[in-house]
Amino acid sequence: MHAWVFPGVEDGLDHEQAMEQLRGVNRLLVDEVMSTGAVVAGRGTFEPANGWGGDHHDGVPIYILSRHAAPSWAADWPAVHYTSDLEGAMRAAKVAAGDRNVLVHGAGTAQRALAAGVLDELELHLVPVLLGEGRRLFEHLGLEQRELDRIRVLEGEDGVTHLHYRVRR
Amino acid sequence: MHAWVFPGVEDGLDHEQAMEQLRGVNRLLVDEVMSTGAVVAGRGTFEPANGWGGDHHDGVPIYILSRHAAPSWAADWPAVHYTSDLEGAMRAAKVAAGDRNVLVHGAGTAQRALAAGVLDELELHLVPVLLGEGRRLFEHLGLEQRELDRIRVLEGEDGVTHLHYRVRR
Repeated sequence: MHAWVFPGVEDGLDHEQAMEQLRGVNRLLVDEVMSTGAVVAGRGTFEPANGWGGDHHDGVPIYILSRHAAPSWAADWPAVHYTSDLEGAMRAAKVAAGDRNVLVHGAGTAQRALAAGVLDELELHLVPVLLGEGRRLFEHLGLEQRELDRIRVLEGEDGVTHLHYRVRR
Repeated sequence: MHAWVFPGVEDGLDHEQAMEQLRGVNRLLVDEVMSTGAVVAGRGTFEPANGWGGDHHDGVPIYILSRHAAPSWAADWPAVHYTSDLEGAMRAAKVAAGDRNVLVHGAGTAQRALAAGVLDELELHLVPVLLGEGRRLFEHLGLEQRELDRIRVLEGEDGVTHLHYRVRR
């Protein structure tokens, strides 16, 4: 599922080495992620990744959604801010990012931001594998209808299709 | 959801007039459907559409999956064959179609054919609208993993993205 973003990991490269191998569409997409000015993610994304060592990229501010306080190992990292307030986190992240984009990291957080009306754009990475019953990509939207504008389709050489949408207001 | 294939229906055109308005990507896609050599569909697609008057297009054979016999109004249509045997219907349709494609009409029938290993290709029409909780596009696959090869992406002018995959064997 994630081989497109970590080429060579199956052959023994570590993640950093793999990212250096990226070319073409995959290079472009990862460069976009790495040029964002703030990160918003859920605790369930952040904590299993050991909090990215306190630095997702370039020391940009990281807002972590959680009903709990930061764990002791993350409490002193200056870039990391634990909060239970999604809308507040999105506002703070947009201010911190200035004219750069905010990376909303993880499907659950993106779904919540979409439902709250504070998500501006969506990038979907459509990997051509059907896995059993799958999981729903859009939940918690209730009965509402949301319209999107497709602003870019990129066809990766590896069969992954990257669809970029703007959420219509 | 279906405006791409019936342009102008909201402005009062009937379906036939609407299909004459089709241009570009949408024209190509509908022409592909209309050049298939047989149709396989579920009763739940066929009966609400009044059985397409017994002729989906060009009099090609129509195989309808149902646990029941054909209703009286469809029983005498020579092109229409009711059956409860999905794999048999797919075999018969492929023979009847010769070197043309078979149209598998309806998500439920396509899902069952995919699960049974008798679906060769998939065309997904990705409309940029999120509707509440949505419905699952792939079900009944159990725990199996299926890999697809992307063979075409068409970007409709109306924001609909048409993704064509071959099911890998």
